[in-house]
Amino acid sequence: MSFFDVVLGRPIATVDEHGEHIGPIAGIPVFGLDALSSAAYGPEAALTLLIPLGLAGLHYILPVTAAILVLLVIVFFSYLQTIDAYPNGGGSYTVATENMGERAGLLAAAALMIDYILNAAVGISAGVGAIISAFPALQPHTTILCLAVLAGLTLVNLRGIKDSGLAFLAPTYLFCGSLLFVIGLGLWRAYQAGGHPAAIVAPPHLPIGVGMLPLWLLAKVFASGCTAMTGVEAVSNGVMAFRQPACRNAKKTLTMIILLLMALLAGIALLCRAYGIGATDPSGAGYQSVLSQLIGAVIGRGWFYYVSMGSIFAVLALSANTSFADFPRLTRAIAMHDFLPHVFLIRGRRLLFSHGIYALVGFTALLLIIFQGVTDRLIPLFAIGAFLAFTLSQAGMVVHWLRVGGPRAKLRMVVNGLGAVATGVTLLVVLVAKFREGAWVTALLIPLLILLMASVRRHYDGVREETTIDRPIHTDNLVAPLVIVPVDRWSKIAEKGLRFALKLSDEVEAVHVDAEDRLSELEQHWEANIADPIRAIGRTPPRLISLPSPFRFVMWPLLEHILAVEREHPERQIAVLIPELVVKHWWQAPLHNQRSQMLKLLLLVKGNQRITVINIPWYL
Amino acid sequence: MSFFDVVLGRPIATVDEHGEHIGPIAGIPVFGLDALSSAAYGPEAALTLLIPLGLAGLHYILPVTAAILVLLVIVFFSYLQTIDAYPNGGGSYTVATENMGERAGLLAAAALMIDYILNAAVGISAGVGAIISAFPALQPHTTILCLAVLAGLTLVNLRGIKDSGLAFLAPTYLFCGSLLFVIGLGLWRAYQAGGHPAAIVAPPHLPIGVGMLPLWLLAKVFASGCTAMTGVEAVSNGVMAFRQPACRNAKKTLTMIILLLMALLAGIALLCRAYGIGATDPSGAGYQSVLSQLIGAVIGRGWFYYVSMGSIFAVLALSANTSFADFPRLTRAIAMHDFLPHVFLIRGRRLLFSHGIYALVGFTALLLIIFQGVTDRLIPLFAIGAFLAFTLSQAGMVVHWLRVGGPRAKLRMVVNGLGAVATGVTLLVVLVAKFREGAWVTALLIPLLILLMASVRRHYDGVREETTIDRPIHTDNLVAPLVIVPVDRWSKIAEKGLRFALKLSDEVEAVHVDAEDRLSELEQHWEANIADPIRAIGRTPPRLISLPSPFRFVMWPLLEHILAVEREHPERQIAVLIPELVVKHWWQAPLHNQRSQMLKLLLLVKGNQRITVINIPWYL
Repeated sequence: MSFFDVVLGRPIATVDEHGEHIGPIAGIPVFGLDALSSAAYGPEAALTLLIPLGLAGLHYILPVTAAILVLLVIVFFSYLQTIDAYPNGGGSYTVATENMGERAGLLAAAALMIDYILNAAVGISAGVGAIISAFPALQPHTTILCLAVLAGLTLVNLRGIKDSGLAFLAPTYLFCGSLLFVIGLGLWRAYQAGGHPAAIVAPPHLPIGVGMLPLWLLAKVFASGCTAMTGVEAVSNGVMAFRQPACRNAKKTLTMIILLLMALLAGIALLCRAYGIGATDPSGAGYQSVLSQLIGAVIGRGWFYYVSMGSIFAVLALSANTSFADFPRLTRAIAMHDFLPHVFLIRGRRLLFSHGIYALVGFTALLLIIFQGVTDRLIPLFAIGAFLAFTLSQAGMVVHWLRVGGPRAKLRMVVNGLGAVATGVTLLVVLVAKFREGAWVTALLIPLLILLMASVRRHYDGVREETTIDRPIHTDNLVAPLVIVPVDRWSKIAEKGLRFALKLSDEVEAVHVDAEDRLSELEQHWEANIADPIRAIGRTPPRLISLPSPFRFVMWPLLEHILAVEREHPERQIAVLIPELVVKHWWQAPLHNQRSQMLKLLLLVKGNQRITVINIPWYL
Repeated sequence: MSFFDVVLGRPIATVDEHGEHIGPIAGIPVFGLDALSSAAYGPEAALTLLIPLGLAGLHYILPVTAAILVLLVIVFFSYLQTIDAYPNGGGSYTVATENMGERAGLLAAAALMIDYILNAAVGISAGVGAIISAFPALQPHTTILCLAVLAGLTLVNLRGIKDSGLAFLAPTYLFCGSLLFVIGLGLWRAYQAGGHPAAIVAPPHLPIGVGMLPLWLLAKVFASGCTAMTGVEAVSNGVMAFRQPACRNAKKTLTMIILLLMALLAGIALLCRAYGIGATDPSGAGYQSVLSQLIGAVIGRGWFYYVSMGSIFAVLALSANTSFADFPRLTRAIAMHDFLPHVFLIRGRRLLFSHGIYALVGFTALLLIIFQGVTDRLIPLFAIGAFLAFTLSQAGMVVHWLRVGGPRAKLRMVVNGLGAVATGVTLLVVLVAKFREGAWVTALLIPLLILLMASVRRHYDGVREETTIDRPIHTDNLVAPLVIVPVDRWSKIAEKGLRFALKLSDEVEAVHVDAEDRLSELEQHWEANIADPIRAIGRTPPRLISLPSPFRFVMWPLLEHILAVEREHPERQIAVLIPELVVKHWWQAPLHNQRSQMLKLLLLVKGNQRITVINIPWYL
């Protein structure tokens, strides 16, 4: 096992788990990372749609950003109330389930699962986009780079993260700090230059372009830009992680995050307009991210540029990392309601729900490969899941206030209702505007996931119903089982099996399959070494039964014999003792136990309630 | 399971296996296929090396072929004697082991394993070569075509082949018939044209070329051409498959096969010379096999051409198929001597040694991918294995006659000795001449395989020694085990577990891990539904033990408790009863038993000789 220890870290004992509580300073990186990093791809997603219009397209970026900021403010107030109402964490799944019932909860669960997977995929692809902007020669290797980042995150997460909050601190503040500095400096230069500053490193030339933007294209731009809002729900999910007074600290943190995000989004939009920066072809060889152009235009491509781009990559990769923390928790919560296989409930070596991580990694890798690591192709799938979750959470809050009541319940209902309507409308816009570009994938996956979860639940309910009893235990027929011990030759393993059998019962059958002409050898030992000593202590010795095997089969004659014995004793429990060698080294495993494994499998498949397999481990 | 039934065929019951015995007419295709099909790549392998010499190179093909024919005759007489000596089948592994001991046997085993794998790879690649010659547009897809043929063969073989002899009959006779017809017609035309017949479809132009062939290149040509002899050992391996008098029929069959092969090889060489046919670049776009050129030159590219090429493909694919029959038998024979994992001893659903097939397919696919399905690159690896097996088999026969004696033992020793020396010298020639081209791979693999097999044997011997006893069974301390039953809630499954525990012992512990606050529910049931009824029949009721689980872990508290109980009772056997749900459909399996599987695994890893896991199957 030591190989796994080295790569995955030593198993963590249960007692090592302890929660640390944080304040706003640590809370902004931990819970804001996801929202703030969205600034790195949201505006760019909107600008990408404006490429065909050239410079003329930039006229539209300010009004679209303004609309997004308004939506952001509405959602902000809405989530402030969620924090009040759910001090133990009000994720969309919880809020929707508690207030609107199981079906709404399932819908939220499906939306969130897709949301988390896409958050990982988009974080990685946008992060790699930052690397490619800085080092254009890497562009042909986009997919491989994305998968490498995913592999790195997987390894780090399977090791388990301790104090991951600290690791978030530096990149997040570096990211915000450097971007705000660039924005401030750029705006100052623009102001001094009368609105048209000269770029230090000129962004790729945009054709002048003309033409009005049709309304449906404007809707698309808005829909894409809305991905800048993804992640703002994080604080409300994790209120319990804050220091007392938890709600107050959480609200402070959320406020800071929203203000920072708004500053970033507004600044980016203004600078793009001032410097004439548009998006570049997202899958072409000349790709350069909007932020890369922006930093280059304001500061040039010196050390500051590379530090900033590095912080952008780090923040995006860490934002993908939040999916690694949240997705397994979500699948666990869903599995606790029997909607997903219980395997998601099992904690692994490092106190993680490892299967959730496997599922996340598998789907993320699939997305990155299918969409070749191009952020722009993933955006349409992303927005749907995120806004569906937003809407369900806000709508659930409306019902919550209706149910709970309280002093200012009506006002609160209006605030959350406004949030629900605004995000709901946005969801519809995204769905319609982005349907052909990929939103249909999400729109199809959500009902499929719901069907899957419902059928899993149905199965578990069926099993529970089938096995539930409300009566006393049956106490008839509590006699020792008839024990069958397959014996190959007289060995310590056979001794252990026979001894165990004699501990269980006085009716023991030692069965020998005569495939290799060893019967005579075994018979020689039998009376002297087995039967006589057992008679000597007054017990009934096992019966030795020999099964012929003309074709040197071992398994089938044994199986047929066991089934025949079972038929002959319709009232008895049959116990089959199968010796199993426990090897010292993993590479010895392929050398042993294939027959016993196969016999066990066959007995499970062909057997019934009265046949029980008992493994007798023999440690080498 | 029905999906597998459709794809892989219904499982075959043991009683269905019966041998049919064959005569020479059926024997030639069944045992000659492999040898005869070698005519499709052996001469071509030799000619490929002569490409640089152009037309001048063709001068050398006749003397090289003559040398190969002489070697073939020597080997023929040698194998006639093997048939006499081993009427139950004298494969190289058997002959070498019996006569020259385990080490020679291991060497033969390693050589044969490699030989069979390469036989499959070369058969497939040469068969695909025939297809590409007929349809040159397919050339870029060589590797994929090879893997597709391999996949087809795998599927057919995992279904198991009934009466495969009949399937061999038509293609083999078609192959021999059409080739002999082409050779006869071609020779007649050449005779009439005074040695220089006009080609109907002209073969690719050969440059005139000049130059003497250096001796070492001649050795290479001979070494490559010798692959035309592979497969002639098949009859001697399978004497027991012949009708009585088996030896006589086998010898008749071998004679016919050798005569046919000689006629083919001589005819091909003569026609290549007469029509000026050389090999083409084996991995280039213009590749055309020698036989394709030859048939085209003599008959043209009409229907006859396509039928002939089809029969060549069929024969080569079927020749690869013989590896599917022989390799699993070989690995089984080796595993019976403990030199390979015993998994190779297990017969699958269709009476096949499935694991042998998996191994063969894996290695063959690997070779085809690495060498991109180009026969010419595989040939150097092939010849080594084949000639090493020849040599060991002949040398073993020399020792056999020395041991057994008999009327004409000396003469027989001389014949086999001549065979051993001839094939041994050829082996050396092949090894030296082809070392850099790939023979080193085989030369390296053989000792590695031997080391592997020796260490497997050492492990099995060690286990046997560790477990062997020659004393009576210990009869002390035969008391019922202490039984631990994990109980989640009061259900039919818990009832079954507790009932089984009570059948085994009066000391039963029901352990509940309090992870989901179900203890009170279970405690409510306990006295009325479990403890009281058991007391009523005069038995000791199980003790209910509750384990706290602050972090909602289930496995670890259980494991720690079991290990603690084990430490407290240093003399007792501890039996842990783990309920296991047996699902109706395979797709339900991921929904259940992960915890019980994991607990079992942990108990195996952390446990010891005194802890035994008992699975209580519950059939849904």
